[in-house]
Amino acid sequence: MNWLDEGALYSSIGLFLREDLGRGDITTQSILMRNARARGRFVAGEKMVVAGLEAAEEVFITLDPQQQLEAFAADGEEVEAGKVIARTSGFADVLLAGERTALNLLQHLSGIATMTRKFVGAVEGTKAKIADTRKTTPGLRMLEKYAVLLGGGVNHRYGLDDGICIKANHAAIAGSLGMAVRSARERMGHLHKLAVEVASKNEISEAIESGTHILVVNSSSGITVELSGPITLESVRTYAEAGADLIRVDALTQSVRAMDISFQIQPG
Amino acid sequence: MNWLDEGALYSSIGLFLREDLGRGDITTQSILMRNARARGRFVAGEKMVVAGLEAAEEVFITLDPQQQLEAFAADGEEVEAGKVIARTSGFADVLLAGERTALNLLQHLSGIATMTRKFVGAVEGTKAKIADTRKTTPGLRMLEKYAVLLGGGVNHRYGLDDGICIKANHAAIAGSLGMAVRSARERMGHLHKLAVEVASKNEISEAIESGTHILVVNSSSGITVELSGPITLESVRTYAEAGADLIRVDALTQSVRAMDISFQIQPG
Amino acid sequence: MNWLDEGALYSSIGLFLREDLGRGDITTQSILMRNARARGRFVAGEKMVVAGLEAAEEVFITLDPQQQLEAFAADGEEVEAGKVIARTSGFADVLLAGERTALNLLQHLSGIATMTRKFVGAVEGTKAKIADTRKTTPGLRMLEKYAVLLGGGVNHRYGLDDGICIKANHAAIAGSLGMAVRSARERMGHLHKLAVEVASKNEISEAIESGTHILVVNSSSGITVELSGPITLESVRTYAEAGADLIRVDALTQSVRAMDISFQIQPG
Amino acid sequence: MNWLDEGALYSSIGLFLREDLGRGDITTQSILMRNARARGRFVAGEKMVVAGLEAAEEVFITLDPQQQLEAFAADGEEVEAGKVIARTSGFADVLLAGERTALNLLQHLSGIATMTRKFVGAVEGTKAKIADTRKTTPGLRMLEKYAVLLGGGVNHRYGLDDGICIKANHAAIAGSLGMAVRSARERMGHLHKLAVEVASKNEISEAIESGTHILVVNSSSGITVELSGPITLESVRTYAEAGADLIRVDALTQSVRAMDISFQIQPG
Amino acid sequence: MNWLDEGALYSSIGLFLREDLGRGDITTQSILMRNARARGRFVAGEKMVVAGLEAAEEVFITLDPQQQLEAFAADGEEVEAGKVIARTSGFADVLLAGERTALNLLQHLSGIATMTRKFVGAVEGTKAKIADTRKTTPGLRMLEKYAVLLGGGVNHRYGLDDGICIKANHAAIAGSLGMAVRSARERMGHLHKLAVEVASKNEISEAIESGTHILVVNSSSGITVELSGPITLESVRTYAEAGADLIRVDALTQSVRAMDISFQIQPG
Amino acid sequence: MNWLDEGALYSSIGLFLREDLGRGDITTQSILMRNARARGRFVAGEKMVVAGLEAAEEVFITLDPQQQLEAFAADGEEVEAGKVIARTSGFADVLLAGERTALNLLQHLSGIATMTRKFVGAVEGTKAKIADTRKTTPGLRMLEKYAVLLGGGVNHRYGLDDGICIKANHAAIAGSLGMAVRSARERMGHLHKLAVEVASKNEISEAIESGTHILVVNSSSGITVELSGPITLESVRTYAEAGADLIRVDALTQSVRAMDISFQIQPG
Repeated sequence: MNWLDEGALYSSIGLFLREDLGRGDITTQSILMRNARARGRFVAGEKMVVAGLEAAEEVFITLDPQQQLEAFAADGEEVEAGKVIARTSGFADVLLAGERTALNLLQHLSGIATMTRKFVGAVEGTKAKIADTRKTTPGLRMLEKYAVLLGGGVNHRYGLDDGICIKANHAAIAGSLGMAVRSARERMGHLHKLAVEVASKNEISEAIESGTHILVVNSSSGITVELSGPITLESVRTYAEAGADLIRVDALTQSVRAMDISFQIQPG
Repeated sequence: MNWLDEGALYSSIGLFLREDLGRGDITTQSILMRNARARGRFVAGEKMVVAGLEAAEEVFITLDPQQQLEAFAADGEEVEAGKVIARTSGFADVLLAGERTALNLLQHLSGIATMTRKFVGAVEGTKAKIADTRKTTPGLRMLEKYAVLLGGGVNHRYGLDDGICIKANHAAIAGSLGMAVRSARERMGHLHKLAVEVASKNEISEAIESGTHILVVNSSSGITVELSGPITLESVRTYAEAGADLIRVDALTQSVRAMDISFQIQPG
Repeated sequence: MNWLDEGALYSSIGLFLREDLGRGDITTQSILMRNARARGRFVAGEKMVVAGLEAAEEVFITLDPQQQLEAFAADGEEVEAGKVIARTSGFADVLLAGERTALNLLQHLSGIATMTRKFVGAVEGTKAKIADTRKTTPGLRMLEKYAVLLGGGVNHRYGLDDGICIKANHAAIAGSLGMAVRSARERMGHLHKLAVEVASKNEISEAIESGTHILVVNSSSGITVELSGPITLESVRTYAEAGADLIRVDALTQSVRAMDISFQIQPG
Repeated sequence: MNWLDEGALYSSIGLFLREDLGRGDITTQSILMRNARARGRFVAGEKMVVAGLEAAEEVFITLDPQQQLEAFAADGEEVEAGKVIARTSGFADVLLAGERTALNLLQHLSGIATMTRKFVGAVEGTKAKIADTRKTTPGLRMLEKYAVLLGGGVNHRYGLDDGICIKANHAAIAGSLGMAVRSARERMGHLHKLAVEVASKNEISEAIESGTHILVVNSSSGITVELSGPITLESVRTYAEAGADLIRVDALTQSVRAMDISFQIQPG
Repeated sequence: MNWLDEGALYSSIGLFLREDLGRGDITTQSILMRNARARGRFVAGEKMVVAGLEAAEEVFITLDPQQQLEAFAADGEEVEAGKVIARTSGFADVLLAGERTALNLLQHLSGIATMTRKFVGAVEGTKAKIADTRKTTPGLRMLEKYAVLLGGGVNHRYGLDDGICIKANHAAIAGSLGMAVRSARERMGHLHKLAVEVASKNEISEAIESGTHILVVNSSSGITVELSGPITLESVRTYAEAGADLIRVDALTQSVRAMDISFQIQPG
Repeated sequence: MNWLDEGALYSSIGLFLREDLGRGDITTQSILMRNARARGRFVAGEKMVVAGLEAAEEVFITLDPQQQLEAFAADGEEVEAGKVIARTSGFADVLLAGERTALNLLQHLSGIATMTRKFVGAVEGTKAKIADTRKTTPGLRMLEKYAVLLGGGVNHRYGLDDGICIKANHAAIAGSLGMAVRSARERMGHLHKLAVEVASKNEISEAIESGTHILVVNSSSGITVELSGPITLESVRTYAEAGADLIRVDALTQSVRAMDISFQIQPG
């Protein structure tokens, strides 16, 4: 699935701003004249895949509908250290009020896109796709999954309502993996496929015999093989070469390293 | 400042759950009988300072008011790998619906508390306090700042309305650092102090002469010295020993490494 | 798919009540003493499959948490004319304030469940399942789909994000049915199946050759056959006997006939 | 009363769209290029009084502020089968995303306006007005009452706060019809009139003697006579000729038959 | 009209508290241990009609569901200076957090009730009732109208949708008072009466001839006479003795003088 | 502090309008043609400092984005009786729907600004500033504090999270004033100053010795002296001349007298 609704994507930006602004930016207001103007530019401090420029623009537009960004790189583009990735000009108080929120988003999302690009590069030439998980930051799932797309990955489930995946905890409750799979086959919607996480040869047989469509972990014939677990940049290629169709990587959205990006303002 | 309102702290948990649940957990519902019961336990996979247990409990309580956690460690407590930090029992579908959201919060916040504890330990014996920044994950600021408290740090500004801090971008717009400081002195509320970030000896003089209350970076007499910048676990003690009163560490809430915590469910 | 989240199901009931109550029930308040008590009972005026009793109870509970219903029939049960399906006692003003909203829901949803039961009965003995469509009343989709389940039907897509169905309008825009199907095969999520509505023999071949999983309308080998269109109680069996796996019936939730149910109140 | 606030009328359309769109239209997104353009037209499949064209336009405008409808019939106009009632052109994904919600509203509201027009026609030449009831679909009351106006009917109470009507349940609780009426006369606001539903000659006398302004059912001198009950298209004229001033018809908004309207899209 | 919905009455109290609390009460939190307990009591500083005790209790209950008030006077009761009107005990931080919001409401509403009681006293023995206007504080209308009831007044319109009153501005737009009245008679709902504000003998005749139900200002036979304008405590009796049925007094809710009430806290 | 966020300032205006409009203005709608146009003007009925013109404009803009005010006086300007302070033209129903809400705000806020200007005038020539308190009308705090600024006053705390002020109730709970101050000094944020309300010579000593930054009431050397209590226009100068730095006046926002302003409409 590779589509994300823009409305949904940016619907929380007002909340993010209110979280930082509270009753207003008292520093700026104690210093500036109301209509002072300024120019600002976002500068990459290291090599990265840029993600979140539209989100950053949305931050400024939420503060002032006139405050658009002029981007010199597109979301998803790889840039070198020192690159000016966007600039904007407008009221100084708007630039200063939006700075931190815009940077927090841009740095976090670029971190995700950059890490995803590395994983995608690591499996280049195999048939494996790199997918994300639901191990996302609460409140940021849609934006983080969008960053994964920008990095060249694919999105796995958007939520618990968006696909059927049977895991160890389900099997434990259902009695056995086979019982869980058979129950799901009987009651699931006809538009869905059934994915099952397996941890042993026995579970593979049990899953396949019960009617699994997608097997999570290790190889088998005729059905999609999807891999998950503590997969690293070092280990990912081995799994891809072993024939995995889809590799789910926790590290894309968990333990994200923020990219180094600065916002430099001057009068204007 | 060291107080955080519980209501505000947990007000977003309903949103986080809806983000993951959408129209409902179709896997669990295709497998389980409506009233199946289960027991689950959170197990630490590594040594950590636990943070977010109350948030995790709030996740389950939001799904079912009866679903409380029995905690074996308190928020802020350090635990070893293998420790069962909490358990709960109730409806199986509630446990499975809340699992991912609870873990995402618990792992992320414990990552922050654990990192803070390391920084606090690194400056032990000096007068320096470890403080956070506004470089937090959008939407999670209050929870992340609470985790910093649990790790032994102190909270810096909650938002732009919560203290006056003049930085390079303000000076650039105002004309000079001194002009920014003088303007702020004149117009700021009488209940606040004025903090100024300085980058050179000249700026220190300029700031002090203009009436700064709090100097950010490097030493001086009679006023609070606060440090910020790319401070690491390796470099933090040097700054503390040089006499800093407060050290602001980006890394507490930016580029957070999630702790390894699992949730194990069985019938019951 | 056959699961519906209770929270989502009843989340609009406060809105429905406010729509009817506005600033308050001025008739009742001009007549009754504040604490007058009363008993009320819901009586079926014709044979029907009851649906919406839990919704009706939620109406009263929203007005007064103590105001529960004692039900003499379960949601999904078939009752005869004259049957007292539930009773309640409590404050008279609560009964009178909730009466209309509770009845509007109960009569509408019972109409849907009853109609669904008739269609299900009409295809008894065949393999065909009766499914609903997205032709639901705006704002009531989840409740209406729940009523379809109670009547013995199955739910088709809950929304546009919940399954891939290619229709004539998609084919028109994409250039041809085959182009639409091939494009979807390439870009759709791996957890979904692809349903295609076909209107001719040519389209059937085109759809199957392009990789359709589910064929909507008429028979074919190896893939699920799903039927939609202006299907009536009279015509439905013919289609079922012709081998349809799933029959989508507009009439389940469109042009609903409300069941005859009354609410009789007396002091008590 | 014949006025309805446009803001209130269309305030739920965002909710209706979210109900259908969820996280996005995955079919369209798997088929189309982002900026593909299309034209669409609404075609009447039978003779009807059109209602809901403004609501349908609001659906598209909510998705894209540029997406206006060009209407060839006004809300309230009677059209023949085959009539193109409106057309629109714009982004293909907007047309496809709004199609179902727009049609669901248009078909439902046109059903109400058409049925109302039939009742109004049936009493033509008498002084009787055709009024609606509070037996509306929860969440759609204002739109449904607007459709009644378009069909030539008048609106009865918008809610329980919008007029005083004493019914059997009120009399039962108050002790007697007379006691209810006398209590209401004493405590009601001076800007309102008092309507009382009566079921027998005795009740008529009791109501009039206690000070009723509006008598619901059957004839009498000097006060408005309003009729309610299971009134059909066949029986309505008899009541009108017997002298009723206002006839409340459940069937206007209950058990609505959706009109046959289609939306045909092509590239453009 | 004399009924007010409790839910509506207190629905804004959460907003009022958030307005005062922001991110939390930093004074109390810098002083107290988390679980310190205290007792508080509300003391009247002057003679007054108490209004808002339930609202004040709601303030504390919103902060802590256990925090009820023990009242020694009921809403609407007249008390002397020095009277302890209510007391409460619980967590000290809850008492301190709710103090200002509770007092702001209690003092303002008691001011309204006390002023209303004075006006009601001034017309004692005449048939005149004292009514409020829509000149209320934005956001507090329902609470202010409730305070008017407590003071012995009656409520006029709750809003523009709650009764038909033709004023000079309407007449100016319609062309003349008579044209406005005739138009309204034709199009208004049959459950309403028509009130008209008149300023001269000519207007009285014009209004009556056009079918007015309620005449606002000065006397006349057979119809309700309602008075509005700059009416004071000194002038009100003259109008009452001249035969007014209802006197609308701006001063009840406009330019409210807050009553002197204090909240005294001690450990406990 | 002297900054107020415009967004926050006007965010409640939609609520205020809905409070007055309910389901719509039935008087206007029973009289006017839908598109009738009119002109209106706001006229000062007495000398005043105008405050709330932007709020009044926001009322009309909320009803119709085209409906701007042409102002002949700015917020904060002093005008004489008879002055036309603003005019507007547009749809007659918009003018009539917004009239009361706009006037209620304008009259109330101008009352505050006018009273503030009087207090500011009374201390002219001294160093004392006139400040407001948290004794504001629930729901209107930001607007009322903005009116205080317009009158020439300064804003004290916006809420309990916006500064540390120790009062008698805190001292009572903490054990003594000194204990409260010492505890606060230890735990308060380093960006804040500490204000303490004192009532006796002993308390002054106790407060200063414990480390108070701001002393509320009476004189002393080296620290800001802030005054609060039942201060009137008559007594304020005495306090100012005695050396107060800041005088907090309850009467600015409590017991506000609404200014006399009318809105005169005519066709056009």
